[in-house]
Amino acid sequence: MSADPSGPGLLAPGLAGSPVAAATGDTAQLQALLDAEAALTRAQAALGLAPAEAAAAVTGAADAGRFDAASLALRARAAGNPVVPLVADLTEAVGPESGPYVHRGATSQDIMDTATMLVAVRALGPVLADLGRVERALARLAAAHRDTPMPGRTLTQHAVPTTFGLKAAGWRSLVLDARDRVTAVRDALPAQLGGAAGTLAAFEAYGAEDPPALTAAFARETGLREPALPWHTLRTPVADLAGALAFTAGALGKTAADVLTLTRTEIGEVAEGGGGTSSAMPHKANPVGSTLVLAAARRAPQLAATLYGALVAEDERPAGAWHAEWEPLRDLLRLVGGAAGCAADLTENLRVDADAMREHLFLTHGLIVSERLSAFLAPLLGRARARALLSELAARTRTEGRSLTDLLAEQPELSGVDLTEVTDPARATGAAGTLTDRALERR
Amino acid sequence: MSADPSGPGLLAPGLAGSPVAAATGDTAQLQALLDAEAALTRAQAALGLAPAEAAAAVTGAADAGRFDAASLALRARAAGNPVVPLVADLTEAVGPESGPYVHRGATSQDIMDTATMLVAVRALGPVLADLGRVERALARLAAAHRDTPMPGRTLTQHAVPTTFGLKAAGWRSLVLDARDRVTAVRDALPAQLGGAAGTLAAFEAYGAEDPPALTAAFARETGLREPALPWHTLRTPVADLAGALAFTAGALGKTAADVLTLTRTEIGEVAEGGGGTSSAMPHKANPVGSTLVLAAARRAPQLAATLYGALVAEDERPAGAWHAEWEPLRDLLRLVGGAAGCAADLTENLRVDADAMREHLFLTHGLIVSERLSAFLAPLLGRARARALLSELAARTRTEGRSLTDLLAEQPELSGVDLTEVTDPARATGAAGTLTDRALERR
Amino acid sequence: MSADPSGPGLLAPGLAGSPVAAATGDTAQLQALLDAEAALTRAQAALGLAPAEAAAAVTGAADAGRFDAASLALRARAAGNPVVPLVADLTEAVGPESGPYVHRGATSQDIMDTATMLVAVRALGPVLADLGRVERALARLAAAHRDTPMPGRTLTQHAVPTTFGLKAAGWRSLVLDARDRVTAVRDALPAQLGGAAGTLAAFEAYGAEDPPALTAAFARETGLREPALPWHTLRTPVADLAGALAFTAGALGKTAADVLTLTRTEIGEVAEGGGGTSSAMPHKANPVGSTLVLAAARRAPQLAATLYGALVAEDERPAGAWHAEWEPLRDLLRLVGGAAGCAADLTENLRVDADAMREHLFLTHGLIVSERLSAFLAPLLGRARARALLSELAARTRTEGRSLTDLLAEQPELSGVDLTEVTDPARATGAAGTLTDRALERR
Amino acid sequence: MSADPSGPGLLAPGLAGSPVAAATGDTAQLQALLDAEAALTRAQAALGLAPAEAAAAVTGAADAGRFDAASLALRARAAGNPVVPLVADLTEAVGPESGPYVHRGATSQDIMDTATMLVAVRALGPVLADLGRVERALARLAAAHRDTPMPGRTLTQHAVPTTFGLKAAGWRSLVLDARDRVTAVRDALPAQLGGAAGTLAAFEAYGAEDPPALTAAFARETGLREPALPWHTLRTPVADLAGALAFTAGALGKTAADVLTLTRTEIGEVAEGGGGTSSAMPHKANPVGSTLVLAAARRAPQLAATLYGALVAEDERPAGAWHAEWEPLRDLLRLVGGAAGCAADLTENLRVDADAMREHLFLTHGLIVSERLSAFLAPLLGRARARALLSELAARTRTEGRSLTDLLAEQPELSGVDLTEVTDPARATGAAGTLTDRALERR
Repeated sequence: MSADPSGPGLLAPGLAGSPVAAATGDTAQLQALLDAEAALTRAQAALGLAPAEAAAAVTGAADAGRFDAASLALRARAAGNPVVPLVADLTEAVGPESGPYVHRGATSQDIMDTATMLVAVRALGPVLADLGRVERALARLAAAHRDTPMPGRTLTQHAVPTTFGLKAAGWRSLVLDARDRVTAVRDALPAQLGGAAGTLAAFEAYGAEDPPALTAAFARETGLREPALPWHTLRTPVADLAGALAFTAGALGKTAADVLTLTRTEIGEVAEGGGGTSSAMPHKANPVGSTLVLAAARRAPQLAATLYGALVAEDERPAGAWHAEWEPLRDLLRLVGGAAGCAADLTENLRVDADAMREHLFLTHGLIVSERLSAFLAPLLGRARARALLSELAARTRTEGRSLTDLLAEQPELSGVDLTEVTDPARATGAAGTLTDRALERR
Repeated sequence: MSADPSGPGLLAPGLAGSPVAAATGDTAQLQALLDAEAALTRAQAALGLAPAEAAAAVTGAADAGRFDAASLALRARAAGNPVVPLVADLTEAVGPESGPYVHRGATSQDIMDTATMLVAVRALGPVLADLGRVERALARLAAAHRDTPMPGRTLTQHAVPTTFGLKAAGWRSLVLDARDRVTAVRDALPAQLGGAAGTLAAFEAYGAEDPPALTAAFARETGLREPALPWHTLRTPVADLAGALAFTAGALGKTAADVLTLTRTEIGEVAEGGGGTSSAMPHKANPVGSTLVLAAARRAPQLAATLYGALVAEDERPAGAWHAEWEPLRDLLRLVGGAAGCAADLTENLRVDADAMREHLFLTHGLIVSERLSAFLAPLLGRARARALLSELAARTRTEGRSLTDLLAEQPELSGVDLTEVTDPARATGAAGTLTDRALERR
Repeated sequence: MSADPSGPGLLAPGLAGSPVAAATGDTAQLQALLDAEAALTRAQAALGLAPAEAAAAVTGAADAGRFDAASLALRARAAGNPVVPLVADLTEAVGPESGPYVHRGATSQDIMDTATMLVAVRALGPVLADLGRVERALARLAAAHRDTPMPGRTLTQHAVPTTFGLKAAGWRSLVLDARDRVTAVRDALPAQLGGAAGTLAAFEAYGAEDPPALTAAFARETGLREPALPWHTLRTPVADLAGALAFTAGALGKTAADVLTLTRTEIGEVAEGGGGTSSAMPHKANPVGSTLVLAAARRAPQLAATLYGALVAEDERPAGAWHAEWEPLRDLLRLVGGAAGCAADLTENLRVDADAMREHLFLTHGLIVSERLSAFLAPLLGRARARALLSELAARTRTEGRSLTDLLAEQPELSGVDLTEVTDPARATGAAGTLTDRALERR
Repeated sequence: MSADPSGPGLLAPGLAGSPVAAATGDTAQLQALLDAEAALTRAQAALGLAPAEAAAAVTGAADAGRFDAASLALRARAAGNPVVPLVADLTEAVGPESGPYVHRGATSQDIMDTATMLVAVRALGPVLADLGRVERALARLAAAHRDTPMPGRTLTQHAVPTTFGLKAAGWRSLVLDARDRVTAVRDALPAQLGGAAGTLAAFEAYGAEDPPALTAAFARETGLREPALPWHTLRTPVADLAGALAFTAGALGKTAADVLTLTRTEIGEVAEGGGGTSSAMPHKANPVGSTLVLAAARRAPQLAATLYGALVAEDERPAGAWHAEWEPLRDLLRLVGGAAGCAADLTENLRVDADAMREHLFLTHGLIVSERLSAFLAPLLGRARARALLSELAARTRTEGRSLTDLLAEQPELSGVDLTEVTDPARATGAAGTLTDRALERR
C-alpha cells in the first residue's frame, strides 16, 4: 500500500498497492502540480518571457520528494487550495533569481486543473492496460465457449438456451465500449491556462504579445491538448471523465453481476479462480473479485453525478463547484482502477463448468425449448392446437416430474414426427454462434 | 399542455405544451411501440418470412389513436411492461389472418427498447433545434459585446476585468459541446432485436435463415442503427444518452447560474427579457427562465446516475435494472427539453446593460487592476517595493474611500509616469477579444 | 389509471390505478392548492381579518373539478409556478366581493408548500396501509417458518444454516423501521406561511395584530403542524420526507432482492403467488412484483439526493432549488407507493417451499456445518488436528462426491462419537428461533 | 495533517489536521476494529465462555500502534476485508494461550460493522461540538441583529424587507434540526453480532447457552446499543447515518450559500472574518470557509444516495452492497466534520455590515415597500386605483430615478396623508422580531 497520505487504505481492498493507487495519491498529485508549474516556466522561456535558467531551475526543483505534502495540506486551508502554499515553497526552493518566474501570471486554478488532467492521464494508463487484459481474457472465453450451451435467464428464470460464448462476447463488447470512451476522453484532456479570470491578461502584462501562443506552448510542455478557451468554468473535460468512468464501472459491473449469479452455490456454472477463503468455513470460496467490482459499480454513478453537477460553475471561478470536483474525480479514478484490476484477475482466471451449464438446460424438464416447439408444431397441428397441447404438457411436466420430450413422444398426433432435434436445448441456441463470431471481429 | 396521461403537468412549468412534452408523452410512447411492431412485421415480410398483407395490416393498424393507453397502463402490471397487453390488442386489431405475424419471434424488450430509442430520437430533434437557437443567440451576444468590459468574478469577488463577449463565448462553447455530444449519441442509437434471450433463435425457428439479416432489415425499417449484438443487458445506448443529457443540462445550467448572478438587484448587468411578474410586488421581474433551467440542472445528474447504475444488468434480462430506466430516461429528455426551450427564450431576449458592467469595474476603487499594476510597477520600483506600495495603497483605498489611481498619482516615486492606461480597467481585458474571436470560429 | 395529466402511465406498471397515483396526480395537487387557499381565508376569517362570507365563498369554490389543470400548467410558465394563475382563476370564481380575500397577504410559496405537505400526508395514508399489510404478512411468514431451516448465504455461497422465519422477521424489522420513520415524518409536516419574504409583514399590513397567531390558525385549518418559523428556505420537512421515503424504498428493496434470489430457477425456495406470465414461454412465471419493487429501490436514493441537495436554498426564496423539489418529491411518493402496493401483494401471496429449503442444506455435502463441527471436534481432537481433518475431508467431499457425515463416520479417531446431531444442518440454526420470537414482539 | 494512510490530504483543504480527520483515518479504523475484537473476548469472559486472562490479553494487545495498517490493507484483498488479516495478526500477538479466544465465533462483518459504528460515534463527537459552536454563534448574531433590517431577496431580486436577525435565526434552526437528527442517530447506533449467517450459532457451539445475552454483553463492552437482531443485511443504522449527515451538510450549506451571496463585491453585507487572501490581488478576501462548506454540501447527497442504495443487501451478507458502504460513510463523516469546523469558524467570525444592509433597502427606489403600500392605499383610494397608481409610479421611479416616497408625496389625492411610516423599509419587517425571539427560545 502506498504510505501516501490520502492513499487508499483499510477500507479499499483491491485498490491498496495498485498502480492506480500510486498514480492518484498525494505524492502523484503533488508531482503533477509541480510538473504544471515547471511546464509553465518552460513555456514562458520558450517564448522569451523568462530566462532559460529559471525554466531549468523550476524544472529541477519540481520533485515531489522535496516538498512536504502533509504541511501543504494543512496550509491549503487558508486559500482553499494547495497551490498557494506550494507556490510559496517552490519559490523559496528555486531561490531569488528564478523565484519571480515561478507561477508568473498564473492563477491557482491553472495549475490545479492542469495537474488534475495530468493525474487523470497517468492513472488511465494502467486502467486501459487492465481493460485490455479483460478484453483479451473475454475474447478467449468467448471463442472457447462459442458453442457451449447454457440457460438464458430473464427476470431470474430460465427462458431459452443461449451460449456462454455469446455471454462473454457481450461482456467484452461493453468493455470495448468502455475502452473507446475512456481513450477518447483521455486523448482530449486539455491543459488549463487563463490567469485570474481567464483572459490571459497577466501574461500580457508580463510581456506576452500573443497570449494564446503561450497556452499552446504550455500545452506542449505538459503533453496535454491545447484548449480552445480557458475552461475554469467550462468543465467539459471533467464531465467527460465522469461519464467515461461511470460507464466503465458499470460495464465491468455487468460482468461481475453475472459472475456472482453464475457462481451461486446452486448454480456453480463459473467460479473465480482465486476465490477468497474463510477460515471458519473451509468449503467457502467467496467470489471476492466480482464483489469488489460490483461495489465499485454501485458507487461510481453517484460520484459522476457530483461531477456533472459541477458543470454549474458560476462566474469566472465558482465558490464550491470546483472544490467539489477534486475528491470525487480521484475517487472515480481509483474505483475504476481497482475494478479494472480485479476484473482482469477475475476474467483471466475464471473457471467455467460447461457440464453444469449443459445439465441446467434440463432443469425445466425441457420447457426451455417450448418457444421453439411452439414454432415447430404450429404448422403441423395448427397454431391453436399447438399452443393448447404445449400448455397441457407443460403443466404435466410439473405435476408428473417427467420431461416434455417424453410426454410429446406419447402424443398420437405426433407419431412419426422426429422430435429429436427440436427438443434438444443444445441445438436451440439460434444465432448465438454467428453473433459471437461477429462480435469478436471488433478489435 | 398535453392531455396525455403521464404528460408533464402542474409541477413542470416551462415544459407543459412544449414539443418535447408531446414527443415523450404516453401517446408518443405508444406510437413508438406500434411503430416498432410494424417495422418488425415489415422487416419479416421483406425477408419473405411474413406475407406483405400482414405487413400492410400491422402498419395500418399501428396508430396510437386506436389504442387505449390508460387501459394498457393498467394491464401492464401483470407482465411488468406494456408490450404484453399491447400485443394482445394489436393482434386483435389486425384480425386472424395477420394476427400470427404480430410480434412474431420477438420479446417484449425488443419492442420496448426500440420504442424508447425512437422516442429519444424524436425528442432530441426539438432539443437540438433549441440548442441551435441558444448557440446562435450567444454568438450574437459574444460578437456584439466582444469589447464590453465587466468585472471578472472569482469566489464571488471581483478579480480582474473580463468582457461580456468572452463570457458569452464561453457559454456558447459549452452549448456546442452539448450539441456535439447529443448529436453523436442520437445518431448511434440502435434498434433492438434478440428474441427471448438475445440469440434470435425464435426468428430462426420461424424460418429466418440468416437471423442477423432480419436485425438489419428491422433497423432499416425503424430508421435506427443496426446493433452489433442484441443489447438487452448491454446498455451502452441508454448510458450514452444519460451522459449526453446530463452534460446538456449542466451546460445550460452554467449560463443560467451566471444570468441569475448578473441579474441580482445589486448587480443588474443583465436581465431576462420577459421576466416573470409578481402581482404583489410590481417592481419585481423574476428571472424565471434561468430559474427553471437551473432547477433542471440540479436534477439531471442524479437521474443520469440511475441510468449509469442500470448498466449493472444481470442475466439476459434483469429483474429491475431495466425497469428502472424507463421513467428516468423520459424525465431526463423532458428536463433537457424544457431547459433548452427556456434557455433559447432566455438568451434570445437577454438584455445586457453594458453601462452597468463598465461602472462596476470601479466598485473596488481601482483595485481590480492591481494584478496588472503589480506587473507594471515591478520593473520601475523593484518587485518588493512595488508590492509593498500596492498593499499600502490598497488599504488606503478602503479607509479613505479614494481610488487607487488618485493615490498612485500622488506618489513622488511615480512622478512623470503615465498611469492612464495601466489603471484603466477597460483596457485590462487581456486576450479576451482574441479568445472570443477564436471561439466564434467554431461552428 | 388516472386520466390525470401527469398521472403515472405506460412506463409505470404497478403504479397506474393505485391510490397513491390518484393522491399525487395533478387533480390531487390542484385540490391541495385550493385547500390551502381556502384554509388561509378561513384562518383570516377566524381572526376577524376577513368576512365569514369570503371564507365560505373561497371554501365553496375550492373544488379541483371547477378548474382547468392543463390550462394552469401552461400558464405556470410565466411566473414559474402554478399558484399565480390559480389565484387569478380562483379570484374570478369567487366574485368581486370575496375576491380581495383570496390569497391575501400570501406568497405563492406559502400555498405551494402547504399543498405539497397536504399531498404528502394524503399519499402516505395508503403507503402506511400497505406497509401494514406487508408487516402482517411477514409476521405470519416468520411465525409459520420459525423453525424452517434453509441455507444461510453470504457472498452468494452457502455459509451456515439459518431459518426462513429469521429471514422473514428481518425483512419485517426493516418494514417496521420504515413505518416508524414515515409516520414520524408525516406527523410533523407543517403548514407554510410567511408572505413574500417570510416576515408575515403583509398579513400585518392587512391588519393582523399577532401574525404568528394567523399561522397557527392556518395550520389548524389545514390539519398540518404549526411551523416554528416560515420555512421557505429551511427545508427540513422536504429533506425528512426524502430520507424516510428513500429508507422505505430500500427496506422493501431488501425483501425484493431476496425473493428474486430465492425464486431463481435453480433455487426455487419461494415463488410469487401471482407471477407474471409469458405467452411465448408457458413455463415462465416471472417475479414481476419483486422486480418492480427493486426497480423503485434503484431509483429512490438518487431522487432523495436531489431533495437533500435542495436544502442549499439561498436567500428568502431560491432560484432553482425550490423548483427542483416538486417533481422528485412526487416521484418518490409514487415510487414508494407503488413499491409498497407490490410488496403487499408479494408478501401476502408468497409461496414458500420448505422442502426445497431443507434439501438445499445438503448441496454442499454437509460442509454447511463445518463451522459447527470445528467447534465440536476441537475439544475432542485438539484444535489443530480438528482443523486439519476437516480441511482434508472437505476436499474429499468435492473429489469423491460423498457427504462429510459419511467421511467422518469412517474416521477411527471418532469411533464411538455420536455425530448425528452435530452434522444435522437442520439442528444448526443457533438462536434463530429465539431471535425470531424476539423480533415478533415488536409491534 | 494526519500521516495516516487514507487520511484526507491535499485535495481536502479544511479537513486536514481536524479532529474528524484523526477520528476517521486508518489508525482510528484499526483501533476500532481492535476495540471490537477486545470487547468480544471480554464479553465472552463475562459470560464464562473465555478465560479472564484471554480477555485481558486481547484487550492489552488491542493497540493500533502495534499493527501495520498498510500491510493489512494489502492483505485485505484476498478475503475482501481487513478483518481476516487482522485476526491473524492479533491472534499471533496474544500468543497461543489466548489465541483461540480471538474472534471466537464471530464473522468478519461482526467486527467490521461494530468498528464502523465506533468510528461514527467517535467522529460525531467533534461534529456535534462544532455544530454547538455554530448554533451559539448564530444565536448571538440573531440576537444582536434582531432589528437590523435588510432586503429580503427572492429569485435573486429584492422582495420586501426582512431582518438579519431572522435570517440568522433561520440558519440556526436548521443547525438545531441537524444536531437533533445527528444526536438521535448516534445514540441509537448498535453493536453488531451474529456469526456467519446471523444466527449466533457458532457462539452456541462454543458454549453460549443464551446467545442473545452475549450480544447484550458485547454491546455493553463497546458502549454501543444492543441490537434487536443481527443487522448484517438490515442496514438501518447506516441509512440513518446517511440521512442525518446529508441533512447536516445541507443545513450548513444553506448558511454558506447565503454568506456567499451577501459577501459578493456588489453586496458586501457580510464578510468572513478570516477570508482567504490572494497574493496577486491584494484587494481580494475570498470567502474560503463558506466555499468549502458549500463544496461539502454539493457532495454529501450523492454519498448518502449510495448508502441508501446499500439497503438493498441480498442474502445474509451481500456481495457488493456492504463493501460499497465503507468509504462513502467515511467520506460523509469527513465532509460533515470539515464543514462543521469551517462553519464554526465562519459564523464565529462573521462580520456584519448593518449599514450596508440598511442602505440596500433603498436600492429599488422604495419599491421594496410596494406590497405594504398596496395594503395601505387600498382603503384610501379603492383597490383598483391604488394598484394603478403604484404601477404608474413604479415605472416612473425607474425612468426618472426618483424615489417612490417623493413621487407619492406629489400626488394630490394623497395630500395630508402621512406616508412617513408606511414608506420606511426599516419599519416594514413585519413579525421578524417576534419570530426571531420565538426561534431563539429553542435550545
